[in-house]
Amino acid sequence: MSHILALSGGVGGAKLAAGLAAVLPPERLTIAVNTGDDFEHLGLTVCPDIDSVTYALAGLNDTVRGWGVKDETWQAMAMLKALGEPDWFNLGDRDLGMHIARSWHLRSGETLSQVTARLTRALGIAHAIVPMSDAPVRTQVRTEQGWLDFQRYFVAEQCRPAASAIRFAGTPGAAPSPGFAAALARDDLAAVVICPSNPYLSVDPILAVDGVRAALAARAVPVIAVSPLVGGKALKGPLAKLLGELGQTVSNAAIAAHYAGLLDHLVIDQSDAADAGGLRAGGVSATITGTVMCDADDRERLARVALSAARIETG
Amino acid sequence: MSHILALSGGVGGAKLAAGLAAVLPPERLTIAVNTGDDFEHLGLTVCPDIDSVTYALAGLNDTVRGWGVKDETWQAMAMLKALGEPDWFNLGDRDLGMHIARSWHLRSGETLSQVTARLTRALGIAHAIVPMSDAPVRTQVRTEQGWLDFQRYFVAEQCRPAASAIRFAGTPGAAPSPGFAAALARDDLAAVVICPSNPYLSVDPILAVDGVRAALAARAVPVIAVSPLVGGKALKGPLAKLLGELGQTVSNAAIAAHYAGLLDHLVIDQSDAADAGGLRAGGVSATITGTVMCDADDRERLARVALSAARIETG
Repeated sequence: MSHILALSGGVGGAKLAAGLAAVLPPERLTIAVNTGDDFEHLGLTVCPDIDSVTYALAGLNDTVRGWGVKDETWQAMAMLKALGEPDWFNLGDRDLGMHIARSWHLRSGETLSQVTARLTRALGIAHAIVPMSDAPVRTQVRTEQGWLDFQRYFVAEQCRPAASAIRFAGTPGAAPSPGFAAALARDDLAAVVICPSNPYLSVDPILAVDGVRAALAARAVPVIAVSPLVGGKALKGPLAKLLGELGQTVSNAAIAAHYAGLLDHLVIDQSDAADAGGLRAGGVSATITGTVMCDADDRERLARVALSAARIETG
Repeated sequence: MSHILALSGGVGGAKLAAGLAAVLPPERLTIAVNTGDDFEHLGLTVCPDIDSVTYALAGLNDTVRGWGVKDETWQAMAMLKALGEPDWFNLGDRDLGMHIARSWHLRSGETLSQVTARLTRALGIAHAIVPMSDAPVRTQVRTEQGWLDFQRYFVAEQCRPAASAIRFAGTPGAAPSPGFAAALARDDLAAVVICPSNPYLSVDPILAVDGVRAALAARAVPVIAVSPLVGGKALKGPLAKLLGELGQTVSNAAIAAHYAGLLDHLVIDQSDAADAGGLRAGGVSATITGTVMCDADDRERLARVALSAARIETG
């Protein structure tokens, strides 16, 4: 049976990744996850996108708040604040359990791939969630304050400083993780699905990993992206500000142009049906469907739609 | 005004330390705390006795459970258990905030003294809580499984293996912390108070720090211990087993003999009033009082009793 490689960022991407995992058996799916948002905080290694995907596949994600772990509490953070420690990045107690475990094993010498495999297995996840790279890659934004790490810019500064550039520190020089490299090279690779994550901030870091863009372009397999846009916009306020300052247009046409040379098919929301003609004129076929994922049924249905665009059979 | 040096272990000692802090201004008290129970767990540096004293002085200690932080929860530990990580040592969420902060600053290069000063100040503690040493000292118990770290023996193994010896790894070779050394050398040092902690397990590690026993013996200041015994016993079951295996008798006479050459005065519980005569015959004066500390009034009263044995005035 053919194999599917999914590329995912955080929350939105994690939902489709969970949908793909629901319709494909473990041996048919590899989920390669952005680590550009990772950061060191309070001595812990925090991997927001890996955790979003992990929590979604384990059914531990909070669906009301939209991020993090369900039934979360914030007691450790309250103590850290009382101790005078930085509290600009809120870490829940259950989430901290994950960061403590990961940081401990990383310090013990395991790679991020090994730690991620260990912890996802422990949570009963049979599918492969792999970091895009075991080498640290850090998304950074250039502002009048200099280059800021992404979480510092996004969470602590709330995107207030004007941005003039974005970079993925550590690239070039970061090799794909073993699991990602293996998936890219599989004889039975049948499709690549780019999950509905921010192309500039969540997918570009994955494509910036050494050799990934070239490997994807060289493979004669369909590349299907699910657009993160709904009604022409999906990016929340501050991110739209960042991308506007960088001269990036937010539209399905811009997404298709951004992925030029890679993308074969774009799944767009029914509210953006008018975009389909322009996409097709540009050589990218389009599927129009509802892309908002509120529950497991939505996730599975969208996963099947994305796979059917590549004529992939599901169970 | 004269200065008091208190030596403290965990829970019982922490109560008297809080009482001393309530009756002495910050500039008149140094609390040197056992670090032999410290250990590295899940990549974090846990200092149970420093934390017991800190929580007691900050009013954050849980008085119902008798240890740890009040209003505690256990969410991170539940996640760690779900992740397959060791759960034999239970760490609460608020407590974890402390360990995360401490471990982070230690890794950043601060000494345990510096970190302890930083974190106690942040909690509004004006009195000096100092580790007995900035060098790691680890209480270990020799069993048929070999030398076990204290927490492994005490918590994970629940003292089941027969013990044949106890040692304080890192001694000799561990210097007193700067704050402890300074207190030992103060011209205005007027008394040393050994808090009601286990002499063999909580106070002996402090005395094993380089030069401490000699410095105490050389100073012509009264050394007053408050006995941890009530009704001839106070040590919980497993510890009594350990000390019995090591041939240690648990009695006020044994405590006085154990501190021979150092001790001038022992404060004993009214239930052990019959011990006073034997103590005096052995050259150690005794005060008989109620030593059970249930609330702040008890702690302050016992602190005043201990200090009055050395003719120390309090505010």
